Amino acid sequence: MQKHQVSNNTLTMFSASLKGISQVLLIENSVTGLIVLVAISIYSVPLSIITFISSLIGTVTAKIGGADEKLISQGLFSFNSTLSGLATVLFLEGNQRWIIALFSAVIAAIFTAGMMHLTKPFDVPSLTFPYIILTWFLLTASHRLQFFEAINSLVPQGLAYWHLDISGPIDFISGFTKSIGQIYFLDNIWSGLIILAGIFFASRRLGMLAIYATIISLLAAYYLGSERPLLSSGLYGYNAILTIFAVSDVFHNRKKLIPFTGLLAAVISVLITASLDSFLLPYGLPPLTMPFVLSTWLFLFARKLMPNL
Amino acid sequence: MQKHQVSNNTLTMFSASLKGISQVLLIENSVTGLIVLVAISIYSVPLSIITFISSLIGTVTAKIGGADEKLISQGLFSFNSTLSGLATVLFLEGNQRWIIALFSAVIAAIFTAGMMHLTKPFDVPSLTFPYIILTWFLLTASHRLQFFEAINSLVPQGLAYWHLDISGPIDFISGFTKSIGQIYFLDNIWSGLIILAGIFFASRRLGMLAIYATIISLLAAYYLGSERPLLSSGLYGYNAILTIFAVSDVFHNRKKLIPFTGLLAAVISVLITASLDSFLLPYGLPPLTMPFVLSTWLFLFARKLMPNL
Amino acid sequence: MQKHQVSNNTLTMFSASLKGISQVLLIENSVTGLIVLVAISIYSVPLSIITFISSLIGTVTAKIGGADEKLISQGLFSFNSTLSGLATVLFLEGNQRWIIALFSAVIAAIFTAGMMHLTKPFDVPSLTFPYIILTWFLLTASHRLQFFEAINSLVPQGLAYWHLDISGPIDFISGFTKSIGQIYFLDNIWSGLIILAGIFFASRRLGMLAIYATIISLLAAYYLGSERPLLSSGLYGYNAILTIFAVSDVFHNRKKLIPFTGLLAAVISVLITASLDSFLLPYGLPPLTMPFVLSTWLFLFARKLMPNL
Repeated sequence: MQKHQVSNNTLTMFSASLKGISQVLLIENSVTGLIVLVAISIYSVPLSIITFISSLIGTVTAKIGGADEKLISQGLFSFNSTLSGLATVLFLEGNQRWIIALFSAVIAAIFTAGMMHLTKPFDVPSLTFPYIILTWFLLTASHRLQFFEAINSLVPQGLAYWHLDISGPIDFISGFTKSIGQIYFLDNIWSGLIILAGIFFASRRLGMLAIYATIISLLAAYYLGSERPLLSSGLYGYNAILTIFAVSDVFHNRKKLIPFTGLLAAVISVLITASLDSFLLPYGLPPLTMPFVLSTWLFLFARKLMPNL
Repeated sequence: MQKHQVSNNTLTMFSASLKGISQVLLIENSVTGLIVLVAISIYSVPLSIITFISSLIGTVTAKIGGADEKLISQGLFSFNSTLSGLATVLFLEGNQRWIIALFSAVIAAIFTAGMMHLTKPFDVPSLTFPYIILTWFLLTASHRLQFFEAINSLVPQGLAYWHLDISGPIDFISGFTKSIGQIYFLDNIWSGLIILAGIFFASRRLGMLAIYATIISLLAAYYLGSERPLLSSGLYGYNAILTIFAVSDVFHNRKKLIPFTGLLAAVISVLITASLDSFLLPYGLPPLTMPFVLSTWLFLFARKLMPNL
Repeated sequence: MQKHQVSNNTLTMFSASLKGISQVLLIENSVTGLIVLVAISIYSVPLSIITFISSLIGTVTAKIGGADEKLISQGLFSFNSTLSGLATVLFLEGNQRWIIALFSAVIAAIFTAGMMHLTKPFDVPSLTFPYIILTWFLLTASHRLQFFEAINSLVPQGLAYWHLDISGPIDFISGFTKSIGQIYFLDNIWSGLIILAGIFFASRRLGMLAIYATIISLLAAYYLGSERPLLSSGLYGYNAILTIFAVSDVFHNRKKLIPFTGLLAAVISVLITASLDSFLLPYGLPPLTMPFVLSTWLFLFARKLMPNL
């Protein structure tokens, strides 16, 4: 009996951790979580292992901390841990980064709890905000602590010395599939397609919205004159997908009168990506999913006073 | 009957949009809004047209979004749109900036609704915060998207390379009248005087406060050793006017015991202007009305626990 | 009778001001406040005078403003004034800085009231946040106003030109005692020891926690590879002390299940110090007690949903 309960408990933790991986996509589905792990494995097996462990650490931290069991089982305390573990391993160098990843997964879960309390009076979700701020702080610590070694591409540059150069070839096919992969930092066509399959598995509607958002964001980025390499790597697309998921489906009450707010929010995520890229340049930081968070918050907050949006 | 209603509706929208223009001054008065349009026309007729259209777009967006009719009719959903339309046209180049202005007017109204929800638990107005953040993001997108062409004077510069030089002549008369004009970005003496007339039309008390705040802010900026050209262009004054309006009149319950808090708030707006100019230098951004927002918030929040202020 | 009341009143104000000095340490104890004044006097007598006057100004401002008498008597409106007065005198040059210090003490008290209102819905204290933001703004104004002369060590530098150099000798004894002194900006071994005595006077438990936090933070900073001079000057330690006071004692309900959250929070304050040092480099600003505020908030907010933390 006791043993049965323990194994049940283990199963719940396991399921919550897989859901934590899928919740990055605002989807609560352990199979989708598993499909994402496969997509990450194609890119790198150690990366998929740290992804799962990070999510598990988030789950365990929430459990030890005494958080609400239902929220834990939905993966709501582990998706920020998932992303911070992933980001830490990808944006830092050296073997010690695996330890930092585990540490960041603990903090991400605690930060998530804090943000849930902060956003409660407004009845709006905190999304991936904790992971973003945490990752920016961890990466920026590298300038002052030798234990943190940031990868070379994260180089600070004064905006005064920046010249926009949008020349170069455009690869729309690559931009399309990588936009989906970039949700998990995967600059890889096949990983992107597998994640798309995972989205379709959970909800056909979300699958269609993902395709829709990617096309819209690519066209928006193209016509607004964005840098070609960023566009071709999917770096203008992943925030648009998450934004349209949040605004048009997940936090949508189906009574909205205006059909295109999700579309508008997706385009705004493209603009915010461009702005944040500029704001973060002097610190050499990537925008992560902040464009998604800001454009989603814009609409979720506004809907409280503009219910038709 | 139907037609009568429609025209009534149109009239309400028209009035709400004019009030949106006057609400920039924290004044709800359609005639003052009209007088401001005249003041802008002296500077540039196309600019006054885009100002009105921006305010109208704010009104229409709020209406379609299903916002509260009373708040709409008071112009509270359109003053941020007014300013973001104006700022976009003035700080960007190229014909496409007119389209960006209309787009920004839509977003400003949505952002205003969101901020109203965010500030509700605190019972403090969101002022022009939405327009400021929106404009900073739109201008900063110019470093990454060719569609956005910032004017040359918005040049990023590392604070390490900045040397304060306050030499040059001081023109107090210019500083005085332009302080009023700068509320609408008008670096023009006559426009300033007409706007002052519009303020007096709405409220003699506010007119006197405007004169008072301008003199105080010029003296403060002068004795604190500010750059002469900024002082002479009214760039240290417009925030002080708006601040004293907010703190000493509009959000003032007339039971306060301390008569000079508005004055103190106006001086603080001068200090915040200097600080923000420094903080924004690496991004080449103007402070807009953020000094007004911050110094007004400081006092409105504090009054909840210090009622005599 | 009247006279008696007045002197009583004066005594209350005096006691509230001494408590304001001790509240920097999250301790409400006028004797500890007095001991801190002695510690500051060893470093500089004028500095200890301005410290007391700043706290007194905070108390008086709150009283005139009509704030809650009980909160005033606990020193809760004066500890931000204490620190902003101290910081202003130490980070600015010229005789006019004494006037700026008095001015900043007034604003700090008003800002404290505002932050109390802002944090009320979350049931979390605002800590030293008002003083930090205020001081950052005052120091940054020096780039635009001649009246504000920042000391030479506050030099802005682009992060692109920064190279981490952790060479040099380590002085753990100095790092230990100065960590305590740096709470009040005192880069002095004896001052640190006297303040430690003041902490022990108020609470043996806090005294032990201070020693514990200092050792932990020195070890963390050492093993993470921080710059030796910062470590030896106690600049990695003072935030850890305040953080462990807040998380493990002052705002601790004694029903927590996990004994080491304070320890974890102290280590996080070391990381945040490193990150903030980097974020603030382009502005030449010191992190002040922001690492303490952020890591304490992280845990106090999270505890609302994770009660065991």
